Amino acid sequence: MPLMPVTDSMFLLGESREHPLHVGGLQLFELPPGADPSYVGDAHKALLETGDLRPLFRRRPRGPVDTVGQLVWTNDDELDLEYHVRLSGLPSPGRVRELLELVSRLHGSLLDRHRPLWESHLIEGVEGGRFAVYTKVHHALLDGVSALQIMRKALSEDPGERDMRPPWAGVPRTDATGGRSDGDPLAGLLGAAKVVRDVVGVGPAVVRYLNQAFAEQAATLPFEAPRSMFNVPITGARRFAAQGWPLERIRAVGEAAGCTVNDVMLAMCAGALREYMGERDALPDKPLVAAVPISLREDGSAGGNAIGLILCTLATDMADAGDRLAAISDSMRRGKEVYRGLSQLQITALSAIPFAPLAVALLPGALRLTPPSFNLLISNVPGPKQPLYWNGAKLLGVYPVSIPYEGQALNITVTSYAGSLEFGLTGCRRTVPHLQRMLGHLDTALADLEKAVRA
Amino acid sequence: MPLMPVTDSMFLLGESREHPLHVGGLQLFELPPGADPSYVGDAHKALLETGDLRPLFRRRPRGPVDTVGQLVWTNDDELDLEYHVRLSGLPSPGRVRELLELVSRLHGSLLDRHRPLWESHLIEGVEGGRFAVYTKVHHALLDGVSALQIMRKALSEDPGERDMRPPWAGVPRTDATGGRSDGDPLAGLLGAAKVVRDVVGVGPAVVRYLNQAFAEQAATLPFEAPRSMFNVPITGARRFAAQGWPLERIRAVGEAAGCTVNDVMLAMCAGALREYMGERDALPDKPLVAAVPISLREDGSAGGNAIGLILCTLATDMADAGDRLAAISDSMRRGKEVYRGLSQLQITALSAIPFAPLAVALLPGALRLTPPSFNLLISNVPGPKQPLYWNGAKLLGVYPVSIPYEGQALNITVTSYAGSLEFGLTGCRRTVPHLQRMLGHLDTALADLEKAVRA
Repeated sequence: MPLMPVTDSMFLLGESREHPLHVGGLQLFELPPGADPSYVGDAHKALLETGDLRPLFRRRPRGPVDTVGQLVWTNDDELDLEYHVRLSGLPSPGRVRELLELVSRLHGSLLDRHRPLWESHLIEGVEGGRFAVYTKVHHALLDGVSALQIMRKALSEDPGERDMRPPWAGVPRTDATGGRSDGDPLAGLLGAAKVVRDVVGVGPAVVRYLNQAFAEQAATLPFEAPRSMFNVPITGARRFAAQGWPLERIRAVGEAAGCTVNDVMLAMCAGALREYMGERDALPDKPLVAAVPISLREDGSAGGNAIGLILCTLATDMADAGDRLAAISDSMRRGKEVYRGLSQLQITALSAIPFAPLAVALLPGALRLTPPSFNLLISNVPGPKQPLYWNGAKLLGVYPVSIPYEGQALNITVTSYAGSLEFGLTGCRRTVPHLQRMLGHLDTALADLEKAVRA
Repeated sequence: MPLMPVTDSMFLLGESREHPLHVGGLQLFELPPGADPSYVGDAHKALLETGDLRPLFRRRPRGPVDTVGQLVWTNDDELDLEYHVRLSGLPSPGRVRELLELVSRLHGSLLDRHRPLWESHLIEGVEGGRFAVYTKVHHALLDGVSALQIMRKALSEDPGERDMRPPWAGVPRTDATGGRSDGDPLAGLLGAAKVVRDVVGVGPAVVRYLNQAFAEQAATLPFEAPRSMFNVPITGARRFAAQGWPLERIRAVGEAAGCTVNDVMLAMCAGALREYMGERDALPDKPLVAAVPISLREDGSAGGNAIGLILCTLATDMADAGDRLAAISDSMRRGKEVYRGLSQLQITALSAIPFAPLAVALLPGALRLTPPSFNLLISNVPGPKQPLYWNGAKLLGVYPVSIPYEGQALNITVTSYAGSLEFGLTGCRRTVPHLQRMLGHLDTALADLEKAVRA
């Protein structure tokens, strides 16, 4: 029985009922033309007939789960697939609002440690001839990027394909024409995520070094994160809000202003946060600081796979949308320059930083002793460019459902899919009320940016 | 800030993710004639507008919740009613099967300790023009009997009554004609339950005495509980199954055999368990032993309120339904005689026994050291005789959703309502598979008993 690496067990030992450490994904599908009313129910039954599961989806932790001790992964030989793959309905009228309410609730409950640490929920009755799939996987089993990757691999670009296997099924299709994994847009980032996990695993000495490197990076910045409503202790319940905007609109703003899509995305978040916090009289005088993971490979500045974490101002003290975009773009450019001056080894070490705040935040009392290094994490995970299908049902959108941490009550993760930029906002239910209003504010923020670059 | 009595805090300190300690109730309603399609959604909205809550429903625990330490109850001044009162749908076809699946899932997740420890779920889309309400309350806040009582008080015998307040609303209706609580069939038992809680609170010395009294009672019995599939460690997920049978049929069997309704109910459980365990090759050679709480007041043998716990054979080694009923009836009669010989003080002390196995089972390792005193707890809580209504919607059935404990993977709680005996079976999902088959077996067991008494 293999001992569990610390990169896995830290997520199990650090978990509590207030801090569920699972990642999720929400996929919204269109029913295929002429689908039977029992389409989703039938799909659920078919899924339950999958006998062979990947070893990953059979794994469950064993050992002293609630105390500090060595954990092991074991295989669950009596896996109850009906427990893991569930069928849900929505209350009428079955709008996206009711869907997000259900996903919020599902995302807030802990996974059962006596079983393999994942659940997949088919949700029927979404208005407009749609259905959804919400999947939840423990961070100890898969990180969010790998989870998205596995979900994506279970889909097809061919609307005519049927009898597709679920993501948890044993072996991907073995047809000779396959080879879908070549050129997969996520493959690079997935590799990078693996490196990060490996690095984190090397021990406290490295974590100390990392914290130091991180502190140095922070020290060189012309700004400092203020305390905010998001940087407080959190509870276990979650709110989730999600919506997509056309990449074309976002790209047009970026081209007009000489910025990247990522800069415009951050400026949308900045505008929306300014509005949301303003409504609550909770906007700090000093600008919010976001932590933004970037893939360093696309810069061409470093070989291999590496993720860096950039601390970026959100310029929420500025009233003008165009000024905010310029400040954010400048801040991101400076952040990337810091990485450009680093050696490959230093980059690899810095890659682990996204996980360091988590490790620190889970220590009791840590939150109150140190000011926040950043106010929230905003990630952008590139996704597939082509429309995808699942047994003839078209994937309309895919939204990451992430993990708020102690002291980090709101997480924004976006992903791209088939010409759309899809925002997933995950917050602590108590700390971040009326999270769905952020969707309206994001919409306004994009419109404001369009106006600003036209002026 | 009042310190929390140990009778409350023991349920919080003893809880873990494998052992949620909340009780629940499922109410099934008929939509009023000519109800709007948005009836349940509208009812949900109306419920969210209730501003004033009873103090009990505002209480939340504060203090070192996961360690041994003194807890206090505090008032939640920012209660988020939307979190506590939820609207759910069912997947089609919305049969009782889908309803039970949803309730199983809702009952298996822990309540959020950062909030008052209750949730109420309106569930729309039950086929046949029905809807349901599943309510979940932590045992530290309310015991199951009190919870049923509060839910019952929110209902009316008048189908024409409207604008009824939810169970958690501040003050019951103050109309002068009220006085519904007089003659309430649950009032006596509710009082008894309170006595039990008070007694449990007096300290370890009493618990020692109780265990001794319990052991003595067990020693005088001509049987001993075998180890069984139900007496093992449990996991956190739950299965719930529920169905009602006409009291008339059960009463007819009792009258023909010279037994009580309670005896026939136990014989139905015995027949069903024999079948269920037989199917799994898990029927012990020795008969199963049930722990059956009884109200001693109805015996007339003791003044005041008291509950005794009778250890009763289920005669699962006997193939004939009539023989089983006779053996069970005899065993119950002997059990009551034990109590008849006791003083009032001894009875009061014995009353605490239903909670003692829980306290013992929650000590690590206790399960493996001692053989089970009984194989499962079977309770019968008397309920209202008249049909009840909620804003014109007729209550069709009410089913208790109880707590499996470590070493006690199955709980059967029945209640009577308007001419029907309603069974609620709550089990650990892993240990008690296909629990819904028990419903078919209960039906067969009743038919077998009818045949046996006719022969």
